[in-house]
Amino acid sequence: MSTFATPPIDPMRITFETRVTAPMSPSGPVLTRRMSDLKGLFADTSEWERSLAEDRVVYEVASTPVPEIEGELPQSITTIHPGTVAGEFHMTKGHMHTRPRGEIYLGLSGVGGLLLFDGNRPEWIPMEPGVIGYIPPGWAHRSVNTGDEPYRFLAVYPGDSGHDYDWVLRNGMGYRVFSGPAGTDLRPF
Amino acid sequence: MSTFATPPIDPMRITFETRVTAPMSPSGPVLTRRMSDLKGLFADTSEWERSLAEDRVVYEVASTPVPEIEGELPQSITTIHPGTVAGEFHMTKGHMHTRPRGEIYLGLSGVGGLLLFDGNRPEWIPMEPGVIGYIPPGWAHRSVNTGDEPYRFLAVYPGDSGHDYDWVLRNGMGYRVFSGPAGTDLRPF
Repeated sequence: MSTFATPPIDPMRITFETRVTAPMSPSGPVLTRRMSDLKGLFADTSEWERSLAEDRVVYEVASTPVPEIEGELPQSITTIHPGTVAGEFHMTKGHMHTRPRGEIYLGLSGVGGLLLFDGNRPEWIPMEPGVIGYIPPGWAHRSVNTGDEPYRFLAVYPGDSGHDYDWVLRNGMGYRVFSGPAGTDLRPF
Repeated sequence: MSTFATPPIDPMRITFETRVTAPMSPSGPVLTRRMSDLKGLFADTSEWERSLAEDRVVYEVASTPVPEIEGELPQSITTIHPGTVAGEFHMTKGHMHTRPRGEIYLGLSGVGGLLLFDGNRPEWIPMEPGVIGYIPPGWAHRSVNTGDEPYRFLAVYPGDSGHDYDWVLRNGMGYRVFSGPAGTDLRPF
Protein backbone atom coordinates (compact mmCIF):
# COMPACT_ATOMS: atom_id res chain seq x y z
CA MET A 1 0.00 0.00 0.00
CA SER A 2 1.36 3.38 -0.94
CA THR A 3 0.68 6.55 0.99
CA PHE A 4 -0.26 10.13 0.22
CA ALA A 5 2.35 11.88 -1.88
CA THR A 6 4.59 14.57 -0.39
CA PRO A 7 4.20 18.14 -1.70
CA PRO A 8 4.95 19.63 -4.12
CA ILE A 9 2.57 17.37 -6.02
CA ASP A 10 3.23 16.66 -9.69
CA PRO A 11 0.42 16.58 -12.23
CA MET A 12 -0.83 13.03 -12.52
CA ARG A 13 -3.02 10.80 -14.64
CA ILE A 14 -5.32 8.66 -12.51
CA THR A 15 -7.25 5.73 -13.92
CA PHE A 16 -9.94 3.58 -12.38
CA GLU A 17 -12.26 0.80 -13.39
CA THR A 18 -15.87 1.93 -13.13
CA ARG A 19 -17.51 -1.49 -13.16
CA VAL A 20 -15.63 -3.61 -10.65
CA THR A 21 -13.83 -3.15 -7.37
CA ALA A 22 -10.34 -2.31 -8.52
CA PRO A 23 -7.61 -0.11 -7.10
CA MET A 24 -7.07 3.34 -8.46
CA SER A 25 -3.76 3.79 -10.25
CA PRO A 26 -1.68 5.35 -8.81
CA SER A 27 -3.13 4.40 -5.43
CA GLY A 28 -2.78 6.05 -2.07
CA PRO A 29 -4.16 4.97 1.33
CA VAL A 30 -6.94 2.36 1.49
CA LEU A 31 -9.32 2.44 4.44
CA THR A 32 -11.34 -0.67 5.38
CA ARG A 33 -14.33 -0.39 7.70
CA ARG A 34 -15.63 -3.58 9.29
CA MET A 35 -18.81 -3.96 11.32
CA SER A 36 -16.75 -3.58 14.51
CA ASP A 37 -15.71 -0.09 13.35
CA LEU A 38 -19.35 1.03 13.18
CA LYS A 39 -20.36 1.00 16.85
CA GLY A 40 -23.40 3.14 17.62
CA LEU A 41 -24.51 3.50 13.99
CA PHE A 42 -27.24 0.89 13.57
CA ALA A 43 -30.57 1.07 15.37
CA ASP A 44 -30.69 -2.60 16.36
CA THR A 45 -27.76 -2.88 18.77
CA SER A 46 -28.37 -6.59 19.49
CA GLU A 47 -28.27 -7.51 15.82
CA TRP A 48 -25.13 -5.40 15.36
CA GLU A 49 -23.45 -7.21 18.29
CA ARG A 50 -24.35 -10.61 16.80
CA SER A 51 -22.76 -9.52 13.50
CA LEU A 52 -19.41 -9.04 15.24
CA ALA A 53 -18.78 -12.81 15.24
CA GLU A 54 -18.33 -12.59 11.47
CA ASP A 55 -17.20 -8.93 11.53
CA ARG A 56 -17.69 -8.48 7.79
CA VAL A 57 -16.26 -5.63 5.73
CA VAL A 58 -18.99 -3.01 5.23
CA TYR A 59 -17.06 -0.57 3.04
CA GLU A 60 -13.66 0.38 1.68
CA VAL A 61 -12.27 3.78 0.69
CA ALA A 62 -9.40 3.86 -1.82
CA SER A 63 -7.68 7.23 -2.19
CA THR A 64 -5.37 8.64 -4.83
CA PRO A 65 -1.97 9.90 -3.59
CA VAL A 66 -3.15 13.55 -3.62
CA PRO A 67 -2.69 14.66 0.01
CA GLU A 68 -5.31 16.08 2.35
CA ILE A 69 -3.82 19.56 2.69
CA GLU A 70 -5.02 23.07 1.82
CA GLY A 71 -4.97 23.85 -1.90
CA GLU A 72 -4.99 20.23 -3.10
CA LEU A 73 -8.15 18.48 -4.32
CA PRO A 74 -8.00 14.81 -3.22
CA GLN A 75 -10.23 12.06 -4.60
CA SER A 76 -11.31 8.65 -3.38
CA ILE A 77 -13.51 5.76 -4.47
CA THR A 78 -15.77 4.21 -1.84
CA THR A 79 -17.24 0.72 -2.25
CA ILE A 80 -20.13 -0.14 0.10
CA HIS A 81 -20.93 -3.85 0.06
CA PRO A 82 -24.62 -4.82 0.01
CA GLY A 83 -26.36 -5.91 3.19
CA THR A 84 -28.42 -4.82 6.18
CA VAL A 85 -28.40 -4.98 9.98
CA ALA A 86 -31.98 -5.94 10.93
CA GLY A 87 -33.22 -4.30 7.73
CA GLU A 88 -31.11 -1.13 8.04
CA PHE A 89 -28.91 -0.76 4.96
CA HIS A 90 -25.11 -0.83 5.08
CA MET A 91 -23.80 2.72 5.35
CA THR A 92 -20.69 4.78 5.91
CA LYS A 93 -19.99 6.37 9.30
CA GLY A 94 -20.83 9.79 7.93
CA HIS A 95 -19.09 13.02 8.87
CA MET A 96 -19.25 16.80 8.91
CA HIS A 97 -16.33 18.73 7.47
CA THR A 98 -14.41 20.67 10.10
CA ARG A 99 -14.20 23.60 7.66
CA PRO A 100 -17.05 24.84 5.44
CA ARG A 101 -16.10 22.98 2.26
CA GLY A 102 -18.32 21.53 -0.47
CA GLU A 103 -17.80 18.03 -1.88
CA ILE A 104 -19.12 16.00 -4.78
CA TYR A 105 -19.98 12.32 -5.06
CA LEU A 106 -20.26 10.77 -8.54
CA GLY A 107 -22.05 7.42 -8.84
CA LEU A 108 -19.92 4.78 -10.62
CA SER A 109 -21.74 1.44 -10.19
CA GLY A 110 -24.61 -0.02 -8.20
CA VAL A 111 -27.34 2.04 -6.57
CA GLY A 112 -27.45 3.86 -3.29
CA GLY A 113 -28.15 7.19 -1.74
CA LEU A 114 -26.52 10.23 -0.26
CA LEU A 115 -28.00 11.25 3.10
CA LEU A 116 -27.36 14.85 4.14
CA PHE A 117 -28.18 16.69 7.37
CA ASP A 118 -27.51 20.29 8.33
CA GLY A 119 -28.64 19.82 11.93
CA ASN A 120 -32.25 20.74 11.14
CA ARG A 121 -33.20 19.35 7.75
CA PRO A 122 -32.30 15.96 6.27
CA GLU A 123 -32.05 15.47 2.51
CA TRP A 124 -31.91 12.22 0.53
CA ILE A 125 -30.35 12.09 -2.93
CA PRO A 126 -30.82 8.80 -4.85
CA MET A 127 -27.57 7.86 -6.55
CA GLU A 128 -26.74 5.78 -9.61
CA PRO A 129 -23.97 5.80 -12.23
CA GLY A 130 -23.61 9.20 -13.89
CA VAL A 131 -25.28 11.18 -11.11
CA ILE A 132 -23.46 13.84 -9.07
CA GLY A 133 -24.63 14.40 -5.52
CA TYR A 134 -23.62 17.88 -4.40
CA ILE A 135 -22.78 18.35 -0.70
CA PRO A 136 -22.78 22.07 0.14
CA PRO A 137 -20.56 23.37 2.95
CA GLY A 138 -22.15 22.81 6.38
CA TRP A 139 -24.00 19.57 5.55
CA ALA A 140 -23.03 16.28 7.21
CA HIS A 141 -23.07 13.40 4.72
CA ARG A 142 -23.35 9.62 4.72
CA SER A 143 -23.65 7.11 1.89
CA VAL A 144 -25.95 4.08 1.87
CA ASN A 145 -26.05 1.01 -0.39
CA THR A 146 -29.73 0.40 -1.18
CA GLY A 147 -29.16 -2.36 -3.75
CA ASP A 148 -28.02 -5.97 -4.08
CA GLU A 149 -24.59 -5.30 -5.56
CA PRO A 150 -21.67 -3.15 -4.42
CA TYR A 151 -22.39 0.58 -4.62
CA ARG A 152 -19.35 2.59 -5.75
CA PHE A 153 -18.85 6.31 -6.02
CA LEU A 154 -16.06 8.80 -6.65
CA ALA A 155 -15.62 11.55 -4.05
CA VAL A 156 -13.81 14.85 -4.74
CA TYR A 157 -13.17 17.20 -1.81
CA PRO A 158 -10.85 20.08 -0.90
CA GLY A 159 -7.77 18.88 0.98
CA ASP A 160 -8.44 21.06 4.03
CA SER A 161 -12.04 19.85 4.55
CA GLY A 162 -11.31 17.70 7.61
CA HIS A 163 -13.54 14.93 9.01
CA ASP A 164 -15.69 15.29 12.16
CA TYR A 165 -17.22 11.87 12.87
CA ASP A 166 -18.41 12.79 16.38
CA TRP A 167 -20.84 15.36 14.95
CA VAL A 168 -22.89 12.51 13.50
CA LEU A 169 -22.84 10.51 16.75
CA ARG A 170 -24.06 13.61 18.62
CA ASN A 171 -26.62 14.89 16.09
CA GLY A 172 -27.61 11.86 14.03
CA MET A 173 -28.37 12.21 10.33
CA GLY A 174 -32.10 12.97 10.46
CA TYR A 175 -33.14 9.71 8.83
CA ARG A 176 -32.38 6.03 9.17
CA VAL A 177 -32.50 4.13 5.88
CA PHE A 178 -34.21 0.74 5.88
CA SER A 179 -35.15 -1.85 3.29
CA GLY A 180 -38.96 -1.69 3.09
CA PRO A 181 -41.66 -3.56 1.19
CA ALA A 182 -41.93 -0.67 -1.32
CA GLY A 183 -38.16 -0.12 -1.60
CA THR A 184 -36.07 2.33 0.38
CA ASP A 185 -37.78 3.32 3.63
CA LEU A 186 -36.59 6.60 5.22
CA ARG A 187 -37.46 6.73 8.93
CA PRO A 188 -37.00 9.98 10.90
CA PHE A 189 -35.11 9.65 14.19
CA MET B 1 -30.43 29.74 -19.51
CA SER B 2 -30.35 29.70 -15.73
CA THR B 3 -27.61 31.24 -13.66
CA PHE B 4 -25.52 30.32 -10.66
CA ALA B 5 -27.64 29.69 -7.58
CA THR B 6 -27.63 32.15 -4.68
CA PRO B 7 -26.18 30.99 -1.33
CA PRO B 8 -27.01 29.24 0.87
CA ILE B 9 -26.87 26.37 -1.60
CA ASP B 10 -29.14 23.37 -1.06
CA PRO B 11 -27.90 19.85 -1.61
CA MET B 12 -28.64 18.85 -5.18
CA ARG B 13 -28.71 15.87 -7.51
CA ILE B 14 -27.00 16.63 -10.81
CA THR B 15 -27.33 14.38 -13.84
CA PHE B 16 -25.57 14.43 -17.17
CA GLU B 17 -25.35 12.37 -20.30
CA THR B 18 -21.84 11.01 -20.77
CA ARG B 19 -22.12 10.07 -24.45
CA VAL B 20 -23.61 13.08 -26.19
CA THR B 21 -23.55 16.83 -25.86
CA ALA B 22 -26.43 17.43 -23.50
CA PRO B 23 -27.05 20.03 -20.83
CA MET B 24 -26.46 19.20 -17.22
CA SER B 25 -29.59 19.13 -15.11
CA PRO B 26 -29.99 21.44 -13.26
CA SER B 27 -27.95 23.72 -15.49
CA GLY B 28 -26.19 26.95 -14.71
CA PRO B 29 -24.27 29.29 -17.02
CA VAL B 30 -23.14 28.07 -20.46
CA LEU B 31 -20.04 29.62 -22.03
CA THR B 32 -19.47 29.39 -25.79
CA ARG B 33 -16.03 30.10 -27.27
CA ARG B 34 -15.82 30.78 -30.98
CA MET B 35 -12.65 31.11 -33.06
CA SER B 36 -12.90 34.90 -32.69
CA ASP B 37 -12.59 34.50 -28.90
CA LEU B 38 -9.23 32.75 -29.26
CA LYS B 39 -7.02 35.56 -30.57
CA GLY B 40 -3.31 34.95 -30.00
CA LEU B 41 -3.65 31.24 -29.24
CA PHE B 42 -2.82 29.51 -32.51
CA ALA B 43 0.66 29.59 -34.07
CA ASP B 44 -0.54 30.26 -37.62
CA THR B 45 -2.09 33.71 -37.34
CA SER B 46 -2.99 33.91 -41.04
CA GLU B 47 -4.91 30.64 -40.93
CA TRP B 48 -6.65 31.76 -37.74
CA GLU B 49 -7.70 35.03 -39.42
CA ARG B 50 -9.09 33.15 -42.43
CA SER B 51 -11.14 30.98 -40.02
CA LEU B 52 -12.95 34.08 -38.74
CA ALA B 53 -15.17 34.19 -41.86
CA GLU B 54 -16.89 31.04 -40.59
CA ASP B 55 -16.11 31.79 -36.89
CA ARG B 56 -16.97 28.26 -35.80
CA VAL B 57 -17.63 27.23 -32.20
CA VAL B 58 -14.44 25.66 -30.79
CA TYR B 59 -15.72 24.70 -27.33
CA GLU B 60 -18.56 25.08 -24.85
CA VAL B 61 -18.51 25.00 -21.06
CA ALA B 62 -21.77 24.07 -19.27
CA SER B 63 -21.76 24.67 -15.52
CA THR B 64 -24.00 23.43 -12.73
CA PRO B 65 -25.69 26.13 -10.61
CA VAL B 66 -23.11 25.75 -7.79
CA PRO B 67 -21.56 29.24 -7.50
CA GLU B 68 -17.90 30.19 -7.81
CA ILE B 69 -17.41 31.35 -4.22
CA GLU B 70 -15.19 30.17 -1.35
CA GLY B 71 -16.31 26.93 0.25
CA GLU B 72 -18.40 25.68 -2.68
CA LEU B 73 -17.11 23.07 -5.16
CA PRO B 74 -18.48 23.96 -8.64
CA GLN B 75 -18.47 21.60 -11.61
CA SER B 76 -18.67 22.03 -15.36
CA ILE B 77 -18.62 19.94 -18.51
CA THR B 78 -16.49 21.18 -21.41
CA THR B 79 -17.04 19.98 -24.97
CA ILE B 80 -14.20 20.71 -27.42
CA HIS B 81 -15.25 20.14 -31.02
CA PRO B 82 -12.75 18.36 -33.31
CA GLY B 83 -10.62 20.36 -35.71
CA THR B 84 -7.31 22.14 -36.26
CA VAL B 85 -5.92 25.51 -37.32
CA ALA B 86 -3.12 24.69 -39.77
CA GLY B 87 -2.62 21.35 -38.02
CA GLU B 88 -2.76 22.73 -34.45
CA PHE B 89 -5.55 21.02 -32.54
CA HIS B 90 -8.59 22.84 -31.17
CA MET B 91 -7.93 23.83 -27.57
CA THR B 92 -9.27 25.86 -24.67
CA LYS B 93 -7.81 29.27 -23.82
CA GLY B 94 -6.13 27.82 -20.75
CA HIS B 95 -5.69 29.60 -17.45
CA MET B 96 -3.85 29.73 -14.15
CA HIS B 97 -5.89 29.87 -10.95
CA THR B 98 -5.53 33.17 -9.13
CA ARG B 99 -5.31 31.24 -5.83
CA PRO B 100 -3.31 28.02 -5.30
CA ARG B 101 -6.16 25.52 -5.82
CA GLY B 102 -6.08 22.02 -7.30
CA GLU B 103 -8.63 20.85 -9.87
CA ILE B 104 -9.62 17.58 -11.50
CA TYR B 105 -10.70 16.77 -15.04
CA LEU B 106 -12.51 13.48 -15.67
CA GLY B 107 -12.71 12.24 -19.27
CA LEU B 108 -16.30 11.51 -20.38
CA SER B 109 -16.18 10.91 -24.14
CA GLY B 110 -13.77 11.29 -27.03
CA VAL B 111 -10.02 11.60 -26.63
CA GLY B 112 -7.82 14.55 -25.85
CA GLY B 113 -5.17 15.77 -23.55
CA LEU B 114 -4.52 17.98 -20.57
CA LEU B 115 -1.57 20.33 -21.04
CA LEU B 116 -0.05 21.72 -17.84
CA PHE B 117 2.69 24.29 -17.30
CA ASP B 118 4.16 25.62 -14.06
CA GLY B 119 6.24 28.30 -15.81
CA ASN B 120 9.25 26.00 -16.18
CA ARG B 121 8.08 22.48 -16.95
CA PRO B 122 5.25 21.42 -19.27
CA GLU B 123 3.36 18.16 -18.69
CA TRP B 124 1.02 16.32 -21.07
CA ILE B 125 -1.64 13.94 -19.74
CA PRO B 126 -3.49 11.87 -22.38
CA MET B 127 -7.19 11.79 -21.56
CA GLU B 128 -9.99 9.35 -22.34
CA PRO B 129 -13.22 8.28 -20.63
CA GLY B 130 -12.60 7.12 -17.06
CA VAL B 131 -9.29 8.94 -16.62
CA ILE B 132 -8.75 11.69 -14.06
CA GLY B 133 -6.19 14.36 -14.86
CA TYR B 134 -4.99 15.97 -11.64
CA ILE B 135 -4.03 19.66 -11.79
CA PRO B 136 -2.02 20.59 -8.69
CA PRO B 137 -2.11 24.16 -7.36
CA GLY B 138 0.22 26.44 -9.30
CA TRP B 139 -0.07 24.71 -12.69
CA ALA B 140 -1.70 26.48 -15.65
CA HIS B 141 -3.93 24.12 -17.63
CA ARG B 142 -5.41 23.81 -21.10
CA SER B 143 -7.41 21.04 -22.76
CA VAL B 144 -6.95 19.83 -26.33
CA ASN B 145 -9.11 17.65 -28.56
CA THR B 146 -6.73 15.22 -30.34
CA GLY B 147 -9.46 13.07 -31.93
CA ASP B 148 -12.11 13.12 -34.64
CA GLU B 149 -15.16 13.41 -32.38
CA PRO B 150 -16.08 15.86 -29.60
CA TYR B 151 -13.88 15.51 -26.51
CA ARG B 152 -15.86 16.00 -23.29
CA PHE B 153 -14.69 16.16 -19.71
CA LEU B 154 -16.05 16.98 -16.28
CA ALA B 155 -14.16 19.61 -14.27
CA VAL B 156 -14.39 19.97 -10.48
CA TYR B 157 -12.70 22.98 -8.84
CA PRO B 158 -12.90 24.98 -5.61
CA GLY B 159 -15.20 27.98 -5.93
CA ASP B 160 -12.50 30.50 -5.00
CA SER B 161 -9.95 29.28 -7.60
CA GLY B 162 -10.31 32.22 -9.97
CA HIS B 163 -9.23 32.34 -13.64
CA ASP B 164 -6.13 34.16 -14.90
CA TYR B 165 -6.16 33.95 -18.72
CA ASP B 166 -3.45 36.57 -19.20
CA TRP B 167 -0.88 34.33 -17.49
CA VAL B 168 -1.08 31.96 -20.48
CA LEU B 169 -0.78 34.78 -23.02
CA ARG B 170 2.33 36.02 -21.18
CA ASN B 171 3.99 32.67 -20.43
CA GLY B 172 2.62 30.24 -23.00
CA MET B 173 1.96 26.62 -22.08
CA GLY B 174 5.36 25.08 -22.87
CA TYR B 175 4.07 23.02 -25.78
CA ARG B 176 1.93 23.49 -28.85
CA VAL B 177 -0.10 20.43 -29.79
CA PHE B 178 -0.25 19.48 -33.48
CA SER B 179 -1.66 16.64 -35.50
CA GLY B 180 1.38 14.74 -36.78
CA PRO B 181 1.95 11.71 -39.00
CA ALA B 182 2.52 9.50 -35.92
CA GLY B 183 -0.38 11.00 -33.92
CA THR B 184 -0.16 13.82 -31.41
CA ASP B 185 2.92 15.98 -31.98
CA LEU B 186 4.05 18.09 -29.00
CA ARG B 187 6.23 21.00 -30.12
CA PRO B 188 8.11 23.10 -27.52
CA PHE B 189 7.73 26.86 -27.88
